[in-house]
Amino acid sequence: MSEQLWRKNLINITPYVAGEQPKSDGIIKLNANENAYPPSPKVREILDRAKPEDMRRYPSADAGPLREALAKRAGLSVDNVFVSNGSDDVLATAFRAFFNSDKPIVYPDITYSFYPVWCDLLKIPSRTVPVNEDFRIDAKSLYGEGNGGVVFANPNAPTSLAESREFVKDVLEHNKDCIVIVDQTYVDFADDGIDSLDLIKEYDNLLITHTFSKSRSMAGMRIGEAYGNAELIKYMLAVKDSYNSYPVNRLSIETGVASVQDEEYFQSTLRKVITTRENVSRQLKELGFDVPKSQTNFLFAKHPKYAAKDIFEFLREKGIYIRYFNKPRIDDRLRITIGTDDEMAQMISQIKAFMGK
Amino acid sequence: MSEQLWRKNLINITPYVAGEQPKSDGIIKLNANENAYPPSPKVREILDRAKPEDMRRYPSADAGPLREALAKRAGLSVDNVFVSNGSDDVLATAFRAFFNSDKPIVYPDITYSFYPVWCDLLKIPSRTVPVNEDFRIDAKSLYGEGNGGVVFANPNAPTSLAESREFVKDVLEHNKDCIVIVDQTYVDFADDGIDSLDLIKEYDNLLITHTFSKSRSMAGMRIGEAYGNAELIKYMLAVKDSYNSYPVNRLSIETGVASVQDEEYFQSTLRKVITTRENVSRQLKELGFDVPKSQTNFLFAKHPKYAAKDIFEFLREKGIYIRYFNKPRIDDRLRITIGTDDEMAQMISQIKAFMGK
Repeated sequence: MSEQLWRKNLINITPYVAGEQPKSDGIIKLNANENAYPPSPKVREILDRAKPEDMRRYPSADAGPLREALAKRAGLSVDNVFVSNGSDDVLATAFRAFFNSDKPIVYPDITYSFYPVWCDLLKIPSRTVPVNEDFRIDAKSLYGEGNGGVVFANPNAPTSLAESREFVKDVLEHNKDCIVIVDQTYVDFADDGIDSLDLIKEYDNLLITHTFSKSRSMAGMRIGEAYGNAELIKYMLAVKDSYNSYPVNRLSIETGVASVQDEEYFQSTLRKVITTRENVSRQLKELGFDVPKSQTNFLFAKHPKYAAKDIFEFLREKGIYIRYFNKPRIDDRLRITIGTDDEMAQMISQIKAFMGK
Repeated sequence: MSEQLWRKNLINITPYVAGEQPKSDGIIKLNANENAYPPSPKVREILDRAKPEDMRRYPSADAGPLREALAKRAGLSVDNVFVSNGSDDVLATAFRAFFNSDKPIVYPDITYSFYPVWCDLLKIPSRTVPVNEDFRIDAKSLYGEGNGGVVFANPNAPTSLAESREFVKDVLEHNKDCIVIVDQTYVDFADDGIDSLDLIKEYDNLLITHTFSKSRSMAGMRIGEAYGNAELIKYMLAVKDSYNSYPVNRLSIETGVASVQDEEYFQSTLRKVITTRENVSRQLKELGFDVPKSQTNFLFAKHPKYAAKDIFEFLREKGIYIRYFNKPRIDDRLRITIGTDDEMAQMISQIKAFMGK
């Protein structure tokens, strides 16, 4: 075969590697921070009523009905809400809309591992700042007139820790010249005083992102949202309209609205996950694990005697999938999604077996 | 309010403007080239069987089952097929993966108006070549060692015309050093001898894109696909994994598979649309319109006596939405989507009323 010159135009990137998605039915899947419970029963009613003949029509370009439902729930205007095809799509859209400075954007070294991937893909200069020994983010490390932007997850992953609303305010007070994105993927599982959504009224340069994939049990439907002042949202809509006019399909819009309108079911599911989380955290501590206080639907546990990788592999052989990161600073820890009480009992039982108890 | 320096980091783009999506139920919508008929009845069965509890899980990252169904239908390997969130997402992913040259990519001046928008967003240098007086694409105009890439729609929009498979081969023979994308959005409505899918076996640098939004009546579910050699598809998957790992939701994957597996329904719908298209084309010609031979599910008509804009506005007032482009070379024409026979009869009747007949 002769040399093919078209190859030199291929993109040069290192893609994000997502958690394993095992296909077998028998396994216990605690590795992707999916919700232990199904979405609201109202979602089934939407599918029952859905008319296939509507599918031939393009959906609302801006997922309008879902923007309206989210705005109403948050006490905001529809102009303050952006919805797209999962929070990764929302974040990538925000990176592109807001991080166009020659100065580097700043994010913690231990956080969602998609941030460096977007910086690489979108050619955004970036700089990481180390989290403390105990995985807390140092607000001062995010200060600076040299920032082209700031992004951090709060609560953070995979650490499971959250900083306070005052911390977020502090970071904003010291970053008035760039846009600050706070990725609130896990905030619904957190204590009071963490959610910083109301700060968008005070800070024009704050964007809050969120997802239906965790607290709303709808990872399979690909819905994410962002909240910010109307000017920021307008720019995100323009980026969307320059990339893919109709990113959210009809059934995701409709089932999403049904989920948002069923607040009671939503709260009861959150309570169940949090109760299980606290029980499992206590049990793991009793087995000698170090388990920082989680503000999410997962735990970030370490055992002083046993290698994280060995526990991970033992559980994997037993059909229980948790997450292990072969990365500096966190390769002695396990990220364990909160499943049902029964799933967690099986996991604890297998960890005991591993320990010879 | 003090000057807000963060504004200088906002992106500077001109977004794509999609066709009007009127919300009123009473209207006849012939402006977005949507299908006149619903998707396969098998789609309703998928919704009946869908388990909401599955929604809490992330979908297949690469829409695996749908890639398999499409590969099987086309007699290809799954490695030759890419699926994402509508063909706009597929095309944007391909532009990013393949158009990384300093040389300009080339496309016809009259074609899908998203191509220049992606070039602007992704900072891809580009050059347009004029189509002929009769809207045919001149193959020679696409030749060239100076090309960083080539993209054209075949059949083309809004012209409704198609070039032959030999034309595509000719363009490929003269573009061996860059990647050629042929956007086959409308190919299922075309005559034999247009579809160039089999050429991917002969040309490593050919990518064919397609969508479920037109011939498969599923614009609302946001599914698009691409076909090419395994290396091209691997790069598209890497770009996807650097942007949004899970672009296609569970119900779109499942309903998409059901559609692909119902070949008989698919063919019968195509036949109905084509029959109506030929009837309406004849009726418009009888009214004095110039109607080039359409290879799509729409017509691109011009009347020698009446201004296109006036007809467009008259029909709009009567609740019939067709498309008018206020652009050089085509502002004397109307793009009319093929609806049901009843919808087309109403349109013809209103055009007669406009003409005072």
